[in-house]
Amino acid sequence: MVKIDYKKELESASKGMIMIHNPHLLIRLIVRMIVRKLQIKHAGMILYEPENNCYVLNISRGESGVRIPKGYTRFNDESPIIKIFNRKEFKSLTISRNAIVADDINKMLWKESVIENGNGTKEILHKVDEQMQMLNSTACVPAFYQNKLLAVLLLGEKYDGTKFEQEELDFFSALASDAAMAIRNAQLFESLKHEAERNRKLFLQTIMVLGSTIEAKDAYTHGHTERVTRYALSIARQMVTNGSTQFQENFFENLYISGLLHDIGKIAIPEGILHKTGKLTEEEYGIMKQHTLRGAEMVKPLGLAKETVDGIKYHHESFDGNGYPDKLAGAQIPISAAIIAVADTFDAMTTDRPYRKGLSRETAIDEIKRKSGVQFNPIPVKALVELFRAGRL
Amino acid sequence: MVKIDYKKELESASKGMIMIHNPHLLIRLIVRMIVRKLQIKHAGMILYEPENNCYVLNISRGESGVRIPKGYTRFNDESPIIKIFNRKEFKSLTISRNAIVADDINKMLWKESVIENGNGTKEILHKVDEQMQMLNSTACVPAFYQNKLLAVLLLGEKYDGTKFEQEELDFFSALASDAAMAIRNAQLFESLKHEAERNRKLFLQTIMVLGSTIEAKDAYTHGHTERVTRYALSIARQMVTNGSTQFQENFFENLYISGLLHDIGKIAIPEGILHKTGKLTEEEYGIMKQHTLRGAEMVKPLGLAKETVDGIKYHHESFDGNGYPDKLAGAQIPISAAIIAVADTFDAMTTDRPYRKGLSRETAIDEIKRKSGVQFNPIPVKALVELFRAGRL
Repeated sequence: MVKIDYKKELESASKGMIMIHNPHLLIRLIVRMIVRKLQIKHAGMILYEPENNCYVLNISRGESGVRIPKGYTRFNDESPIIKIFNRKEFKSLTISRNAIVADDINKMLWKESVIENGNGTKEILHKVDEQMQMLNSTACVPAFYQNKLLAVLLLGEKYDGTKFEQEELDFFSALASDAAMAIRNAQLFESLKHEAERNRKLFLQTIMVLGSTIEAKDAYTHGHTERVTRYALSIARQMVTNGSTQFQENFFENLYISGLLHDIGKIAIPEGILHKTGKLTEEEYGIMKQHTLRGAEMVKPLGLAKETVDGIKYHHESFDGNGYPDKLAGAQIPISAAIIAVADTFDAMTTDRPYRKGLSRETAIDEIKRKSGVQFNPIPVKALVELFRAGRL
Repeated sequence: MVKIDYKKELESASKGMIMIHNPHLLIRLIVRMIVRKLQIKHAGMILYEPENNCYVLNISRGESGVRIPKGYTRFNDESPIIKIFNRKEFKSLTISRNAIVADDINKMLWKESVIENGNGTKEILHKVDEQMQMLNSTACVPAFYQNKLLAVLLLGEKYDGTKFEQEELDFFSALASDAAMAIRNAQLFESLKHEAERNRKLFLQTIMVLGSTIEAKDAYTHGHTERVTRYALSIARQMVTNGSTQFQENFFENLYISGLLHDIGKIAIPEGILHKTGKLTEEEYGIMKQHTLRGAEMVKPLGLAKETVDGIKYHHESFDGNGYPDKLAGAQIPISAAIIAVADTFDAMTTDRPYRKGLSRETAIDEIKRKSGVQFNPIPVKALVELFRAGRL
């Protein structure tokens, strides 16, 4: 007989289960708890998975270290153990004890009435017996929710060698049903979490494709967007490492999106201006400069974070107030834009163009250092220089 | 005394609570269940919301129809009812009965020891009494999870006028804790669901921005992408309505994305060809035709559904096998592409261009009908014609 203390302990433990939303952890906890508290050699749980419309042996643990052959870890409606709990015609075999117990099966198989019944009862009992032996279970306790078989708790032998009493089986039945619901809840939770993550990833990948559209017709700027984004993130991280600044948790994702989209407005600039190798006329330069505002406009429907839009809109502002579009100066320039400005310039300087070879990294760094506090915010410049010196650029 | 039947009923009901993931529905169910089964005039629940770090009166219902003044539906840590359960110094007042009962407070307030205690006990008891009166509660039962006050169950008077017994309060305490966890679980579920939906929406909006990039520099094609998408969806719906076909659940979203992105590959086509008003040379036309494959390539990183990519890749295939890029014919052409082809042509025909005025809708419909079974799949053409005749285009 299960001691009453264990019952209380298990009952209170089963209440907290609902708050554990990692199904694997939860199943491990439940099975371990049962094995330890109930002094049985082995326990496992077969759980229904609606996504795959099948039952899966989620865990099977115990000191006897049972191993289930691989192909047998999935069960469909026709698996004996599942079938016997699910089908009306076998109900009389199971409802009496709220469970299937190996000893009972053997007794039943000896009864003439069962053998002569002729509705497949004998056959199913034999098969259940076989499957239970394979799973090393002396008792199987079903868990139903709204008449649906949600799980089967598999119990091994007790250490003291005694048989399961009716009271114990009733208790296991309640426990199995609590556990099954908690596990189902955790599974739903996890699948919802995955959906949220998948959708987030899809969003970010679409942002990446959107950012790369500007490179679609210009092989020479290929990879510019991604490199700028990478530099910008490295600079921001270094600004935290060297103690210059602190960022909110989502700053890095916002900066990432901003980096990918910083030049998106160039889509709207005529190719004649965009690809011109010579010096732009004043009028052409005026049109070219519109790409910052056009970009910010294009992403408006997305309702992106202010930091992200600022990076697109203001990455051509200059620390001395001589940039565009708003001639912001110093601390007026949002930090995301100040970081992208440095990253953007470094990549533009070090990349080959059809009409000129790129500068060496050393020369580019020197040039940017020279313009620190003039064109660029000194804080991201400091971080860039540190990264370069540490060989982490 | 609560009848034993009710206890069992409530216990089993509380087990199913974990599977209800709509917090509002769940709270309504719990409170209604308590009011009905326990024959009390009124019940409510104050629930902790970690997102806002405050306690909120989620519902307060009963036949006495209590209304809580609006400003009082939120409680912080300093609210008397919350404070008395949360603070160690008041523990002696509450632990004895697992709850706060109005009658007990009055008794305590008459005891000299409490009044003279001087640690604010008298004050808090007065305030709790006041707040309970306002909330029309004769007993407040706290629900803790891992030492954190998760909820307070508010109970009104019993219909039979008797006082709450200790056994009843113990039972309510267990029930309140189950309910609070189930509600918390449902809240977490809902917030995760919202996150998944928000991310999905963000993804779709980014797809829309991506699709509209091709229109950024060409005022004359403005709105083309969105119109084609709208027409395509209408045609697909009509194909279902008129019994021509059936679609999988996610076909419409896939078609939606496909419509928005069908011309995305044009980003890669030089403006000189894209905007040419005269007839394209054979070479230019060859380049122009690449936009279908380029588009399919561009969206590859997104891992979109086959239907979606097919719409982009094959919307210039012709029913008679004379289209591009793969000269597919008849049923070889994926249905998403066949639908977009009709929608695309209809919009192109009916829109003004710099070098020609758009056709009337009647003429365009006649023209498309004439090419049914030649250039176009007759099924989407039939749907288009039906929509036009019904004035739903």
